Amino acid sequence: MTDHDDATALIATMGEAARAAAVDLAQATAEQKRAALIGAAEALRRNQAGILEANDKDMQFGRDKGLADSMLDRLRLDADRLRGIEDGMRAVAEQPDPVGEVVAEWDRPNGLHIQRVRTPIGVIGVIYESRPNVTADAGALALKSGNAVILRGGSESLHSSQAIHACMVQGLRQAGLPEAAIQLVPTRDRAAVTAMLQAQGLIDVIIPRGGKGLVGLVQQEARVPVFAHLEGICHVYVDGDADPDKARRVVLNAKTRRTGICGAAECLLIDRAYRGGPALIQALLEAGVEVRADGDLAKIPGTVMAEPDDFGREFLDMIIAVKLVDGVDGAIAHIRRHGSQHTEAILTENDATAQRFFAGLDSAILMRNASTQFADGGEFGMGAEIGIATGKLHARGPVGAEQLTSFKYLVTGDGTIRA
Amino acid sequence: MTDHDDATALIATMGEAARAAAVDLAQATAEQKRAALIGAAEALRRNQAGILEANDKDMQFGRDKGLADSMLDRLRLDADRLRGIEDGMRAVAEQPDPVGEVVAEWDRPNGLHIQRVRTPIGVIGVIYESRPNVTADAGALALKSGNAVILRGGSESLHSSQAIHACMVQGLRQAGLPEAAIQLVPTRDRAAVTAMLQAQGLIDVIIPRGGKGLVGLVQQEARVPVFAHLEGICHVYVDGDADPDKARRVVLNAKTRRTGICGAAECLLIDRAYRGGPALIQALLEAGVEVRADGDLAKIPGTVMAEPDDFGREFLDMIIAVKLVDGVDGAIAHIRRHGSQHTEAILTENDATAQRFFAGLDSAILMRNASTQFADGGEFGMGAEIGIATGKLHARGPVGAEQLTSFKYLVTGDGTIRA
Repeated sequence: MTDHDDATALIATMGEAARAAAVDLAQATAEQKRAALIGAAEALRRNQAGILEANDKDMQFGRDKGLADSMLDRLRLDADRLRGIEDGMRAVAEQPDPVGEVVAEWDRPNGLHIQRVRTPIGVIGVIYESRPNVTADAGALALKSGNAVILRGGSESLHSSQAIHACMVQGLRQAGLPEAAIQLVPTRDRAAVTAMLQAQGLIDVIIPRGGKGLVGLVQQEARVPVFAHLEGICHVYVDGDADPDKARRVVLNAKTRRTGICGAAECLLIDRAYRGGPALIQALLEAGVEVRADGDLAKIPGTVMAEPDDFGREFLDMIIAVKLVDGVDGAIAHIRRHGSQHTEAILTENDATAQRFFAGLDSAILMRNASTQFADGGEFGMGAEIGIATGKLHARGPVGAEQLTSFKYLVTGDGTIRA
Repeated sequence: MTDHDDATALIATMGEAARAAAVDLAQATAEQKRAALIGAAEALRRNQAGILEANDKDMQFGRDKGLADSMLDRLRLDADRLRGIEDGMRAVAEQPDPVGEVVAEWDRPNGLHIQRVRTPIGVIGVIYESRPNVTADAGALALKSGNAVILRGGSESLHSSQAIHACMVQGLRQAGLPEAAIQLVPTRDRAAVTAMLQAQGLIDVIIPRGGKGLVGLVQQEARVPVFAHLEGICHVYVDGDADPDKARRVVLNAKTRRTGICGAAECLLIDRAYRGGPALIQALLEAGVEVRADGDLAKIPGTVMAEPDDFGREFLDMIIAVKLVDGVDGAIAHIRRHGSQHTEAILTENDATAQRFFAGLDSAILMRNASTQFADGGEFGMGAEIGIATGKLHARGPVGAEQLTSFKYLVTGDGTIRA
């Protein structure tokens, strides 16, 4: 047997177990799911020492492997971070249960009453990098929405993820829910990812969370439907009719508040008609941002000349690409070419221009006079999220528990027949 | 060059044209789309003679090929059917435009105003059998929802579909919309289907309309997301607490009103506790239905013994499989095993039992005391439909113009930044 066969057999076994669990989960009560999540949160607190010990092993493995500092930082757990994970679990527990919600209902002239009701999707596969917190977040959201989930985290986080996963299983057990509701792939073998991507009939949808490498693999190999979570190559366009104070405030916040999140701005487009461009660039430089400027803008002292591939690039760092464009149409054309359909913002006081920006672009989130850093399920008032979907099918924008549901129609008659 | 290379190049060219058209279509006004559909309907009327002549060629080709009578019937056009197609086009023209509809909006404590707004998906591929009317229906719904569409009908219907397609292009032209908004694959080469299924980045979603062969091919080869439209293996369960009059009326209607539609009942499950079973079967026999009965039921005169593969089979004919089950749980277990998650009905006067049936099954449509023949977008009040989706992602149940949309978030602030 090859690794590939092993992995296929492993995922088949896990998939069958998940599918059986999904049948029970779809009929679990809101209180059972809440109890399982609270139980998991309590187990996380009780087992803090064990989880941190597991994380030490992972950190050592990561250092030996020569992981970059930024990756090691994402991998690292401490008491504060664990408390954050526990709080997140409790927050999901207290969110309303989406399953069974009547989304719409109406009557037909023939007396039929029709309801459209939320249901779980079934079995979700989540493939992510070495971020142990995703194990908890994705597991919690899947459970809340009544879905069984198969989690496959980055190989460096295996011990931490296993320790967190064990706490979630405790919660499931206490609540009388099947343990296979939340499963973690127990191997570092990359073939397991391929097997998940091809597990048609066992996994209903794959949610990839990660960088270009992961997304590329998924796009190439997936036979199972995917909720695309591409990079956030977010643009801010400062229009000729922008208010300079708002522009300065929003651009600085969009770039610098946190640079490592997918809603961070990566490219600033300035209307040739906007007079405050140099001042805006000066403000970015003063905030410590490396400004990679195109064309004449590169003459501004302190900037560096942009390379062509700086446009359409996710820096996730104190770096921004800047370019002059011809009005809103120029901005739209640039974003259509270089964006990732995540989040873009326009700064303008002109309603017609804002309308043109909103209509002409098709990103998941479009903002006017607001920071791209608001691209976040919590900020939208949706509760916890698994990520920001950049695809257009089923889920789009912040993917919380509600977006992890499907629906069915319930139709009631009284011996009603069709003429 | 092989056929495969030719087909790939053809679909690439059509896909690029569709993608460009989709950008314009997404911003087309409701009135433009309406005008294009009305123009197409008028062209259909004007060109009736030409369309019927094209259909004669197809019918001759079909007969030479030895197509079954039922297939020839689906292929055949006449003045009445053409009028039906034209009326359908006008009906879609007059439906509300889903694009731009604000599905939800709310304010955040920080002053942000968030709107969730419908958008087109982009480019849709529709693969169907030799039914010329689907060319018109699918083209109209795609246009209404602002999507570009690539249509690939069964090879026997090529001339008829081309003649109908030409009318739709006239409508597009009159309304100033891009002709590539509605394209028809101009070849009988099956490799074009494969090329469509693998046109990632060019086609956003594939909608297959057809029997097992087509669906199997799609499942095997698709790299593009698919809105599954499987068979309608619809079940009717008559519970011990059913009202016999309602049961008789609904069962007869569900089976016999029209046998060739996907909402027709294919399997009758009778609770062992229901006393009216023999009378029900007698009524079916008297209506001219072939009753394939399981176990003791096959002793009823006039029935034939069911084979195991009669369960889970789509007859699309005056044939029904019948079986005794142990209450609603027996019915649920049978349907979970043999159903296609399309439409199932329960006959019962017991609210708790009906609730159990609704909760325990996960078909797109579940009915109580109503005929499965209501599984139809028009009957649901949704207008025209492309079919009944049996998958759980994005579209489910009747797929009309609204289900062919995605959405985006429009967020408005006033220089609002994230703390």
